[in-house]
Amino acid sequence: MGGPMAVNLLNKGHSIVVYDVSKEAMKRLEDEGACVATSPSEVASKVDSIISMLPNSQHVRSCYAGDKGVFQTIQPGTLILDSSTIDPTVSKEMAGLAGKKGAVFMDAPVSGGVNAAKGGTLTFMVGGEEKEFEAAKVLLSSMGKNIVYCGEVGNGQAVKICNNMLLAITMIGTAETMNLGMRLGLEPKLMASIINTATGRCWASELYNPVPGVLENVPSSNNYQGGFGTALMVKDLGLAQAAATDTQSPTPLGSLSHQIYRLMCNSGLAEKDFSSIFLLLQEQNK
Amino acid sequence: MGGPMAVNLLNKGHSIVVYDVSKEAMKRLEDEGACVATSPSEVASKVDSIISMLPNSQHVRSCYAGDKGVFQTIQPGTLILDSSTIDPTVSKEMAGLAGKKGAVFMDAPVSGGVNAAKGGTLTFMVGGEEKEFEAAKVLLSSMGKNIVYCGEVGNGQAVKICNNMLLAITMIGTAETMNLGMRLGLEPKLMASIINTATGRCWASELYNPVPGVLENVPSSNNYQGGFGTALMVKDLGLAQAAATDTQSPTPLGSLSHQIYRLMCNSGLAEKDFSSIFLLLQEQNK
Amino acid sequence: MGGPMAVNLLNKGHSIVVYDVSKEAMKRLEDEGACVATSPSEVASKVDSIISMLPNSQHVRSCYAGDKGVFQTIQPGTLILDSSTIDPTVSKEMAGLAGKKGAVFMDAPVSGGVNAAKGGTLTFMVGGEEKEFEAAKVLLSSMGKNIVYCGEVGNGQAVKICNNMLLAITMIGTAETMNLGMRLGLEPKLMASIINTATGRCWASELYNPVPGVLENVPSSNNYQGGFGTALMVKDLGLAQAAATDTQSPTPLGSLSHQIYRLMCNSGLAEKDFSSIFLLLQEQNK
Amino acid sequence: MGGPMAVNLLNKGHSIVVYDVSKEAMKRLEDEGACVATSPSEVASKVDSIISMLPNSQHVRSCYAGDKGVFQTIQPGTLILDSSTIDPTVSKEMAGLAGKKGAVFMDAPVSGGVNAAKGGTLTFMVGGEEKEFEAAKVLLSSMGKNIVYCGEVGNGQAVKICNNMLLAITMIGTAETMNLGMRLGLEPKLMASIINTATGRCWASELYNPVPGVLENVPSSNNYQGGFGTALMVKDLGLAQAAATDTQSPTPLGSLSHQIYRLMCNSGLAEKDFSSIFLLLQEQNK
Repeated sequence: MGGPMAVNLLNKGHSIVVYDVSKEAMKRLEDEGACVATSPSEVASKVDSIISMLPNSQHVRSCYAGDKGVFQTIQPGTLILDSSTIDPTVSKEMAGLAGKKGAVFMDAPVSGGVNAAKGGTLTFMVGGEEKEFEAAKVLLSSMGKNIVYCGEVGNGQAVKICNNMLLAITMIGTAETMNLGMRLGLEPKLMASIINTATGRCWASELYNPVPGVLENVPSSNNYQGGFGTALMVKDLGLAQAAATDTQSPTPLGSLSHQIYRLMCNSGLAEKDFSSIFLLLQEQNK
Repeated sequence: MGGPMAVNLLNKGHSIVVYDVSKEAMKRLEDEGACVATSPSEVASKVDSIISMLPNSQHVRSCYAGDKGVFQTIQPGTLILDSSTIDPTVSKEMAGLAGKKGAVFMDAPVSGGVNAAKGGTLTFMVGGEEKEFEAAKVLLSSMGKNIVYCGEVGNGQAVKICNNMLLAITMIGTAETMNLGMRLGLEPKLMASIINTATGRCWASELYNPVPGVLENVPSSNNYQGGFGTALMVKDLGLAQAAATDTQSPTPLGSLSHQIYRLMCNSGLAEKDFSSIFLLLQEQNK
Repeated sequence: MGGPMAVNLLNKGHSIVVYDVSKEAMKRLEDEGACVATSPSEVASKVDSIISMLPNSQHVRSCYAGDKGVFQTIQPGTLILDSSTIDPTVSKEMAGLAGKKGAVFMDAPVSGGVNAAKGGTLTFMVGGEEKEFEAAKVLLSSMGKNIVYCGEVGNGQAVKICNNMLLAITMIGTAETMNLGMRLGLEPKLMASIINTATGRCWASELYNPVPGVLENVPSSNNYQGGFGTALMVKDLGLAQAAATDTQSPTPLGSLSHQIYRLMCNSGLAEKDFSSIFLLLQEQNK
Repeated sequence: MGGPMAVNLLNKGHSIVVYDVSKEAMKRLEDEGACVATSPSEVASKVDSIISMLPNSQHVRSCYAGDKGVFQTIQPGTLILDSSTIDPTVSKEMAGLAGKKGAVFMDAPVSGGVNAAKGGTLTFMVGGEEKEFEAAKVLLSSMGKNIVYCGEVGNGQAVKICNNMLLAITMIGTAETMNLGMRLGLEPKLMASIINTATGRCWASELYNPVPGVLENVPSSNNYQGGFGTALMVKDLGLAQAAATDTQSPTPLGSLSHQIYRLMCNSGLAEKDFSSIFLLLQEQNK
């Protein structure tokens, strides 16, 4: 994800310094005009705004608070935008450390996948002090088209994991419902069209239907390739469950959905789009 | 439900003969101009089209195939439209019996509650032979504004219970998600507005949000009064689970949702709108 | 199941008249000394006690109340023992019809599989009038070693489906727990031995452990062959869920277990022992 | 828990130095003959064996690796036995730090509540190097009667949280099953007695039945007072779910049980014994 985001920054005329554990990835960006650094702390010493996109909470901690991390050299006044999807408590922790250095940390996780990153059409959900939001928005607009302010730091993460939990639930619900209706004799396109004008309607039924052939240009009609992998959904649901445990919030369907996607990973569907839940529910002996 | 439907038929100029176990209900319709009968079989002997609206499968069986039932006296060519929400296998059974009498039975369950019945704005989901659909549509148009053909007999029921199962799931999912987000510090209106432009969007989040104050004019903002009672949702989910068992269709979230709404009935929420699931999830000691 | 039960009756000196839809099955019993009949009603006309063992509620209704059914010719005073596992409401319905003929109907479902039937070591759970229990016990003792009185008619079924629901839950629970412990680095035999002296102990962990190699002579150590097939467990859980819906009893784990076993049937484990849930939970890419 | 454990050590003739955040608790032990210290590091400087009993992972980290923690002053050769129930990865982390100081850290969580602590009848599940187990056993035998070796460090925790997850599942399963059977008309004592000789049998049905009146001297027969509080079970299930997420182990029933106990805490049952799940399932309008 980070690569195409950096390219968009370059294309919009920004000068950037990049660091990645993959030298190959840095080489590609150098060819596009970026300067490369040998560590996060080197990046921090050279820039006035930092954007990070990392796989998980541990990576974020290490990138910012680690031995060669950003906080070793960061300059007062630096604006940090972390687009990783991580535990909101880690975002808050990083914001506290940044504050001690006179810097501003905002969480800004994205929705939309690699294609949206390439096209510059990502949605950013931003948490942090409201007075810094305008500055963040200017920068993020080079990489996305929908920049939403969600409240204090950590709230970007909170919205992201809440939205994805509901998506996880509605997708399984849609797949169960379509499968049940089909076994009762309903034609799937007709069934989807009725539900989509009725109270069962959801994004998953309407724009990302998990039954092959109901919609064109969605993963289910392309052997569940592309899209949002089941393993990534499991990661986001892990964050949602951790947040639910921290706050003692009952999430019976969110929790069961987490387990079901985990079972799918067990069954060889980890790299398929998460709408492949339909495959798990279908009678497989047919 | 049957009362306001009958009134709409009268208002549109139809002559009708009515039967109800409640004499009071019949009296009201007699005052509006209906003829009253003493049994379903008497109704059947006097009309060329029959519309029924009954609480469950047993009532439908009794009304049609019972001692004083419709099939005792029905005339060949009669068109039957059963708007009850029942087991699709019972609809098929009734259609078979009707066929032996030379009559046509179609299932035509509705969505929309008492207010839609009064306003003549119900949606009818119709199952039966396609060549009879036009005749059915003419009649149903006096009581509803959206008449949808769903395929063979029983398919109206199938669409109805599938839609309501998905609604049940998305409502609990929305309530879990809103509650989690609020405990994480999100403002509920802002949270709903972001989700409603994102992939978690569903009818329940957008038009019937279960959190008080997010939307006006929905049950959650009126102490969960009105709307669609939890006990009725439990009934529909019972039909969905019976259909899932008949067809061996896995419905993990639909099944768990059934249990959760049942728990709600246990906890005194049976007569509240089904969006009152939010109350069960909230911390009640606060 | 019926075959070995009949053989035990013959071996204990009873004269019997048998009927089965399979002529082959009747032939085998004829060779052992049984008389054969051409219908349930013929059986009923020739005996003073009737024992039935049938696959489901529909078969029981047909065998007793059907065209050539037992109730066509049954003699007053006949004792009926139905060992089928069926809906308790059907047992009650049959008992009512039997009563009208002056006969006594008791439900007497069994636990223990084909091997227990052969060995004459079945457990019978008997429901019906207490004053008839002694007569039932005499007869059932030829086929089983544990004859338990459960209360009024239908209660034998109720105990059976309740027990099997709890068995279904504890088996999945044991499989989840063993799998989790093993992934955490625990040695399965050691782990089972500790749990079996602690509060997690259950029949499934102690005597029927689902992890291959923990116990000898159980299906898990024989490629999950033999034992109690997953499809049969799904059938019993269907009865439990129907009873839960009838009585509005919340059964969240029983209901989810039903769905999980149904998924297992989808995944090719229908004919394996129900302890093969362990296979579904294991990482299958290893 | 720590108090009565310390008293037992004193009663068996050990000299002990104690530290607790509660001065009152230390005072009580001082009156019994213990020396008191002002910090964990002071304790560590004065003893050759350390036993800790703390509420959660954070407390353990702080007690050992914090500013005034054990590792500041610990002497080489010290044997540490941590009886807290915590995340096994934290046990491993502490063992690593202890090793650097030349000390030995073993996890030794307990089963049995305050009464077992007082009576010296706790069960200890011990993880760590096998050659140290004998020394640990000698010490733990002053406080418990069942000292079980579970393998490498962290395995004591792993067994504990696995056992408690299975206990959580079997308790809810037993409560569901008893409630269903009772609504079907079964007498609860009779029902339990049959299940306890059959395949549904588990510790929860046999020795800790959640239905009032089935057993004497269990919390359900004492208004669910005493025993193991629901909030504590929620804590242990949180550890189990974290372990399941770390190892990507599917635990559908364990996960749902976690959510159900969380709902119970919401409903005012947090301080009641965890068998009070029966109250949540019962029809509460009766």
